[in-house]
Order: sequence, then structure tokens, then C-alpha cells
Amino acid sequence: MENQQIQITHSQSRKAKPASDQLEFGRIFTDHMFMMDYSEEKGWYEPRIVPYQPITLDPAAMIFHYGQTVFEGLKAYRTKEDKVLLFRPEKNMERLNLSNERLCIPQIDEDFVLNALKQLVNLDKDWVPSAEGTSLYIRPFIISTEPYLGVAASKSYKLMIILSPVGSYYKEGIHPVKIFVEREFVRAVEGGTGKAKTAGNYAASLKAQEVSEKQGYSQVLWLDGIEKRYIEEVGSMNIFFKINGKVVTPELNGSILAGVTRDSVINLLKYWGVPVQERRISIDEIYDSFKNGELEEVFGTGTAAVISPVGELNWEGEKMVINNGKTGSLSQKIYDTLTSIQNGLEPDLFDWTVEVK
Amino acid sequence: MENQQIQITHSQSRKAKPASDQLEFGRIFTDHMFMMDYSEEKGWYEPRIVPYQPITLDPAAMIFHYGQTVFEGLKAYRTKEDKVLLFRPEKNMERLNLSNERLCIPQIDEDFVLNALKQLVNLDKDWVPSAEGTSLYIRPFIISTEPYLGVAASKSYKLMIILSPVGSYYKEGIHPVKIFVEREFVRAVEGGTGKAKTAGNYAASLKAQEVSEKQGYSQVLWLDGIEKRYIEEVGSMNIFFKINGKVVTPELNGSILAGVTRDSVINLLKYWGVPVQERRISIDEIYDSFKNGELEEVFGTGTAAVISPVGELNWEGEKMVINNGKTGSLSQKIYDTLTSIQNGLEPDLFDWTVEVK
Ligand SMILES: Cc1ncc(COP(=O)(O)O)c(C=O)c1O
Ligand SMILES: Cc1ncc(COP(=O)(O)O)c(C=O)c1O
Repeated sequence: MENQQIQITHSQSRKAKPASDQLEFGRIFTDHMFMMDYSEEKGWYEPRIVPYQPITLDPAAMIFHYGQTVFEGLKAYRTKEDKVLLFRPEKNMERLNLSNERLCIPQIDEDFVLNALKQLVNLDKDWVPSAEGTSLYIRPFIISTEPYLGVAASKSYKLMIILSPVGSYYKEGIHPVKIFVEREFVRAVEGGTGKAKTAGNYAASLKAQEVSEKQGYSQVLWLDGIEKRYIEEVGSMNIFFKINGKVVTPELNGSILAGVTRDSVINLLKYWGVPVQERRISIDEIYDSFKNGELEEVFGTGTAAVISPVGELNWEGEKMVINNGKTGSLSQKIYDTLTSIQNGLEPDLFDWTVEVK
Repeated sequence: MENQQIQITHSQSRKAKPASDQLEFGRIFTDHMFMMDYSEEKGWYEPRIVPYQPITLDPAAMIFHYGQTVFEGLKAYRTKEDKVLLFRPEKNMERLNLSNERLCIPQIDEDFVLNALKQLVNLDKDWVPSAEGTSLYIRPFIISTEPYLGVAASKSYKLMIILSPVGSYYKEGIHPVKIFVEREFVRAVEGGTGKAKTAGNYAASLKAQEVSEKQGYSQVLWLDGIEKRYIEEVGSMNIFFKINGKVVTPELNGSILAGVTRDSVINLLKYWGVPVQERRISIDEIYDSFKNGELEEVFGTGTAAVISPVGELNWEGEKMVINNGKTGSLSQKIYDTLTSIQNGLEPDLFDWTVEVK
């Protein structure tokens, strides 16, 4: 793979770029995209950057029927010095291959795809917004394309990378969200696909999301599918609790996603000397700590919002209001530090950023 | 919906039809397909039959990322008198809407879509093969098409129906398969999407399938995701056990698919006066009945194979050989009766077939 050349076809026209205060999440795409194909005979072939455009598939393509697909999500940030930085992109490439493994999709050459991603971002560099909180969201994904209705792994695939300039997740800085602890629906279970970043996990989550939104909650907190007792993660975030000075987060048990932000937060906390544990946490334990007045902060972690403080957890009608519904000081400190590193405003202690040139 | 006209665009050229002894499953498609779209403003609109052709989608279309999609599978059979029959198609329409409900996809007008399906089959009637065991497989499916990377229900959809002439599932009449009882991987759990016919369930199953095939087994038998003890179903079949003269099959517990063939078999058995129970069945119970010499027959039921006798069940290395690895007399009788009804060779006692004209 290493010595395959990426063919570039430049877009003839350039789209208008939206004002940075009008950016939403994932609705607008840049001028180009990356694409390569896979066949059993050729392996991954024809890596190319082409104008952003619709793709054409047979209606029998397996992606439409059996959902064999994986994806990733990461961001590029523009610094004050006009550099463009990626945040730990090698982690996303690594996770893409872990997802591939679970979904029976052929492995990719991580270095090659990361290099392609950089070339694409570099070509559409003008699309990386500069206003505070904005960034360029990067979505690599692989779909199964063989036109065949048998239930089996596809023999052909397409890997694509698309780019979308995105706004600040919270228009007025970070602010706490209300989260509903889900009891009826289940997202994933051990032995299932929970630890892979694959479409079906998200399709499965829509119903619970819809129900909780109607009740005024922005996301759901998933419990384990077996006892409905142990905490898993939020829609597209991992979750952390600060209890009596100590931070805990669910361990990587096979049914939750190993978030890159989660890992970064754990590293930061350790560096700061804040006690942090990855372990099984029951919702009862959280409720007890709340009752005892020891539940100090709760926050979600994920690429989209970086840190999302939780102001309320609703568990079977019991409303746990956390830190008076305000952003806690540790949540704020983590947010400030991570976003400063991502935006090149602070020394990159852990060597997390990678410049695109 | 009722009074919307289906626009028909005839294909200019007709594809060559394969010889009926060369038919595989789901690789060849007919000359036309049905299609309609959904938007929030218009509801389902522009129902049309067009030449079978590739479809074009934005790379950000939600189907590629979050797998919000459902499908169905049924067959059309050619009788000796050259009639074309469908088997209980209204059940598939009903199930499509149940799947829609779970996946947050808008409901369809079942009568309208069934009528569209009939028109399509009628137009491509020449593609319904006549050799014994052959049929025309019909695949309705709905995909989410909104180009948006937020995790939410799509605001636009496409419903399509494609047709594929298929061969006899077993080239030499029905014969028993070997099945591996899965212990590591899980397909679905209560609260998940197991009872919906949606892509993610099948994506989740590929890995276990791959592992069991390497060991010489054709499919896996799923156990419940919680205790890994109760029997669920096979890859794309429900499962029945005949123990000491009585037939049992897992009850519809929320994590298995309510098969149309399953329901038909239960009805037939009741009609024949064979005792049949839908209930929770543990793998231990099956093993005990095997040890006691009471496990007389095991068979899977599904649209593709109708009845698939099981000759061996491998549970943690214990190989249970059933009925000396031969097709049992009840399995054979059910197979003969159902296929005779489907092919119009026997009086349609239950009013199950619907003629396409
Ligand atoms: C299910 C799920 N959990 C957690 C996360 C957080 O992972 P990361 O920090 O790598 O963005 C995401 C999303 O990105 C997710 O989809
Ligand atoms: C998971 C699953 N279970 C059972 C069945 C059998 O259902 P039916 O008899 O309606 O074909 C199918 C397939 O069709 C299936 O995909």
C-alpha cells in the first residue's frame, strides 16, 4: 500500500463557505473527498481525492441490507498561527481497524490512510474555520459494496473520508446537559458490537433518544444490557463521575467504545495527580453518592463536544441535580486544557497534536 | 397514499435470464425495481417502477453512517398452471412496519406497498422460474437518505423493492445441516433490535458465522445475550425441536424475529393435532433430551430454505447428532406441505397464497 500514489482530481468550482457563527454539525461538506476501493484480488486500490460528489451503488449493495460498515470521527483545528492540527489521529486509525476486525472488514494500512487524510485536509485547508470552538470534523468510513443478498461478509468495499466544518458544540461556551438513564432499551451487550464504531449501534439508539428528548433530556445514559444496573456510556460520549474527590469511569468492558477523549482525560487526570479509576460502576452507587452529597461532578467526553458537563441525571423519575446544575471546576479545567492543546494554545505535553502541512 | 398512481418506466433492454439449474441466491436481479421517496413535507411520494439501476446518494447519507434501515424477504412461486403466487405477503408488510417502529422510520401504507410489489412482480413475471424448488425472491427495503452526520432519525428515506430469481436452497432436495451453538458472540438482547429486521443485526452476526464456518458448521444457533442459556434462533431461521412427540420453539421474547414460516409451521402443527409449545427453552434442556434419547428432530424455518433439518448441534464440543443425521419424518412432512401450498399443488387450507395478476 505504502507506495501507491494518491490520484488527485481538483474540483472545478469552489463552494461558498458558511460564516463561522452559522456552522452547525455535519450538514455542510467541503470541496473534496478521499476514496479508495477494495476487492479480494487487488486489496485496497485506487486511492484518490476527487471533488465531493454523490456515490453510485447497486441497490443490492450489502451496505443497504446487512449494515457491514464502520466509521471514525476526529477533528482538525486551526491555531492562532494558522497552523492546522489533528488530535491523536493515529488512535482513530487504530480504532478503525479494531472495528474492522469485529465487522469482518479487511484491515487498512493505518499509516497510509492517515497520510491520505492529511493530504485531503491540506487540500481543503481553507475550510478549517478559525473562530473559537469551531473545527473541521473528519469522517472516515468504510461501506460494503458487493451486490449480493446472501448474509456473508462482502467481497468488495469502499473507504471514504469526508470533511465538514462544524460550529462550537455549545453556542455560549460549555454548559450542562440533562441526561436520562435508560431502562427499557439497550444499546449493546458483551459479545455484541458495542466496542466497534459501527452503524447498527447508532440505529439501535435512536428510539431511546427519541423518547428521552420528548421528556426534555438531550441524551440517554446506557446501562448494561444484562442486569440494567452498570453504567456504560452516553449516546456518543463516554462518562466520568467525580465522587468525593475521586474520578471514576466505566472500564472498557467490551460493550462500550474506547473513546479517544476518554483516554486523553484519564491521562490528564493522572498527570495532575487526580485519583482516577476505570471500573464497573452501578447506577445505585451513583445514586447513593448523590444522596450522601458526595457526587461532585459528572461529565461526558467525546470528539464532538470534548467535555459535556451533566447537570441532571434522571433515574426512574429521581432527578439527581449535580453541582447545582452548573459546570464543575474539574470539568471546566479539563475542557480548557484539552481545547487549548487541540488549538495549539498550550504546550503539547503528551505529543498529542499532529500538524497538517 | 391509496390514490397515488405508480409511474412505470419500462426497461429498454431485457437481460438474459439464467438457466434454472444455475440459479444461486441473491446475485442476479430482474429488469425492473420499485422505488418511492419520503420527506417530512410530502410523506411517501413518487411511487414508481423503473429499470433496475444503480442509485445515487450523498456520501453523508445517514444509511452509510448510522444504519437506520429495515428490510423484508418473501418469495413468488410459479405454479404448474403458470400462475404466480405470493405466500402470506401481508405478514411481511406488517413486519416491515413493526421494524419501522423500532428504527424510528415512518410507517408505510401496507396495502399500497403490497399492491406496488404485486405490480412489480407482474411486470417481471417472466423472471419467476418454474423448476422445482426455484422462486423469485422479493426484497423490499427502506434506507435513510438525509445527508447529515448528527445521530438522529433521518428526515428523508427511500423505499425500494428488488427481485432476484433464486435456485433451490438444497440442490439435492432438503438435507440436514450442522449447526454450532454460539457461546462468545451475541446477536441481540431484550431492549435491542433483535425483533426488527434491520441491518445491524446481520452485521453483528458475521463474525460468529465466520468462526463457525471455519469449523465446518453452516450456521450458528444464538443463545440469549443475558444468561447465554436460552435458545433464540439461527442466522436467518427460527428453530423448532421435536422432543418425545411434542414440538417446542422459542417464544417471541422481543429479541428474535417473528418469522412468517415459523407462524405457518405452528399453524400447520396445530391443524394436524401435533402438540406445539412456544416457550423459553434452555440449551441444557435440549442436551438432556438428547442424552435421554428423546430429541427426535430439530429444524430451522425461514423463507429462504422453508425447512432446514438440523443433523448436528455442536454445544461446547459436545456433538449432538439428531435422528442419525437424517431428515426427520415430521420435518419432511412440513416441508412437503408448505412447498406444495406455496406452489399451488395442494389446497390452500389457510388462505395463505395470493395470486399476482
Ligand atoms: C458510542 C460512543 N461512545 C463514545 C464516543 C467518544 O469517543 P471519542 O472520544 O473518540 O470521540 C463516541 C464518539 O465519538 C461514541 O460514538
Ligand atoms: C433473523 C431471522 N430469523 C428468522 C427468519 C425467518 O423469518 P421468515 O420465516 O419470515 O423468513 C429470518 C429471515 O427471514 C431472519 O432473518
